[in-house]
Amino acid sequence: MLVLFVARSDAWDECAPALRAACPEMELVQQADPAAVDAIIYAPGGPIHDLSPYVNAKLVQSLWAGVERIVTNPTLTQPLARMVDPGLAQGMAEYCTGWAMRAHLGMDRYRQDGEWRNPLIPPLASERRITILGMGELGRAVAVMLAQVGFRLTGYSASGRPVEGIEVFGGDALGAALERAEILLNLLPDTPATRNLLDAERLALLPRGAWIINPGRGTVLDDAALIDALDSGHLGHAVLDVFRTEPLPPDHPFWSHPGITVTPHIAADTRPQTAAPVVAENLRRAMSGRPVLHLVDRGRGY
Amino acid sequence: MLVLFVARSDAWDECAPALRAACPEMELVQQADPAAVDAIIYAPGGPIHDLSPYVNAKLVQSLWAGVERIVTNPTLTQPLARMVDPGLAQGMAEYCTGWAMRAHLGMDRYRQDGEWRNPLIPPLASERRITILGMGELGRAVAVMLAQVGFRLTGYSASGRPVEGIEVFGGDALGAALERAEILLNLLPDTPATRNLLDAERLALLPRGAWIINPGRGTVLDDAALIDALDSGHLGHAVLDVFRTEPLPPDHPFWSHPGITVTPHIAADTRPQTAAPVVAENLRRAMSGRPVLHLVDRGRGY
Repeated sequence: MLVLFVARSDAWDECAPALRAACPEMELVQQADPAAVDAIIYAPGGPIHDLSPYVNAKLVQSLWAGVERIVTNPTLTQPLARMVDPGLAQGMAEYCTGWAMRAHLGMDRYRQDGEWRNPLIPPLASERRITILGMGELGRAVAVMLAQVGFRLTGYSASGRPVEGIEVFGGDALGAALERAEILLNLLPDTPATRNLLDAERLALLPRGAWIINPGRGTVLDDAALIDALDSGHLGHAVLDVFRTEPLPPDHPFWSHPGITVTPHIAADTRPQTAAPVVAENLRRAMSGRPVLHLVDRGRGY
Repeated sequence: MLVLFVARSDAWDECAPALRAACPEMELVQQADPAAVDAIIYAPGGPIHDLSPYVNAKLVQSLWAGVERIVTNPTLTQPLARMVDPGLAQGMAEYCTGWAMRAHLGMDRYRQDGEWRNPLIPPLASERRITILGMGELGRAVAVMLAQVGFRLTGYSASGRPVEGIEVFGGDALGAALERAEILLNLLPDTPATRNLLDAERLALLPRGAWIINPGRGTVLDDAALIDALDSGHLGHAVLDVFRTEPLPPDHPFWSHPGITVTPHIAADTRPQTAAPVVAENLRRAMSGRPVLHLVDRGRGY
């Protein structure tokens, strides 16, 4: 099978060896006669934008979990699959757990100024409430790890579909999920329904001093409302991995705000070693006419 | 039963209500006729140092896991029990996991200077080696939580006694445990055998860039050797919760060293709500002549 790799140029060196090792029967190329291409492996930032000539491609396999930049491409007519790889979910769970622990333990309160302050012992995790927005593959992986540490978890998803061991609010019960969030983790995808979901009114529902950790999508959070909520002292801190514009422009106020920590979209980066077997499995499914995994529903947008 | 509470004055307000609630049959006092005292609840820093008049006390129950300040008291003739409370072990596991995640994720490398750097994705926890020195109650609780996150764990204890799912080195195999430690967690108690165990020679065995997290005892680590190993760039960072002198003096070089984070002995602080039921159980055992839990072996010192 002939598979076209479309992504930023630096992704080729990083990914091609692992992809070829996982799927030796594939001929992986960066340029080809469009009609001869059997499938496309895709990540944003590559040189090809018009997918209409790839009339025989049976699958566009995204290397990213977030597909908003490809699902909205009007030339996309082929089936589109999201990346759901165990390494990605594990990496996201580690990112969320690590930053949630930093918030929970109050690490930033130990000033290194020579004064041994009478300690304020943080509560145990069992007395700390964390809310996770988005209970898909990633949200559930995060929930499992946080539950193992012992946190009190609340979930929210559009469907409100139950997840074992966690109270999940759905639809218009977002407020109830936010009111419980001493630490709020956003894992919602970018869809018309989630855009600016966390606006000034909704941020005001969070408990005073709450932390927001956003490794989901930047469009979910109203930038100006976040800064206002930090400046007023209502929110404690924000850790942001995703932004409306990436790379985050050098003059963006998030960079210099003392209440904001910026990380450069690393929480759920695809790791070639764990993603390649998932790509191989889906390519084989597409070639043999079996159902592909993690097919994107274009109506929902993810 | 008449129980004497001996601790720093601020501990009384914090602990007495929970202790009385957990053990209503106890008369808890801060002063009493020594011969009338049935048991002593003890933490360092209190007003009583001579325990010889308490000839009828059947138990000295420490509120701390570390008992080196009481076990060396020559007037102690009564049975001594360490605090092993589930909240303490959970709190220690949370502290160790949180700081290990900070090291693992490289949180401190994301400078907030407006430059979106090409990210270096950390390996998954399954590719990160953590060594835990000390595999007692606390060490094992830490190991369980870190294993759930997914880290590759190595243990070390004097006995080398196996722990399920972890390779535990013992006795003179300390070097092998240190060589694996990208992150080193010290949970060893203060005993003659552990004093200055982590000296310049042993620190040199750690991989370059390793982090040391020490919520165990300050005497295990050679202060000057640690500073040298950080200054030379051999070690990445140290997070220290315990010290040879506490409170850590304001002019101690640890405070101002950029490679050291000081926390004020909070990792395993006893939480009254979870410790009180453990104290109550042990007092009842002592009063009725049943074996008390977590009895200190004076020979070993813990």
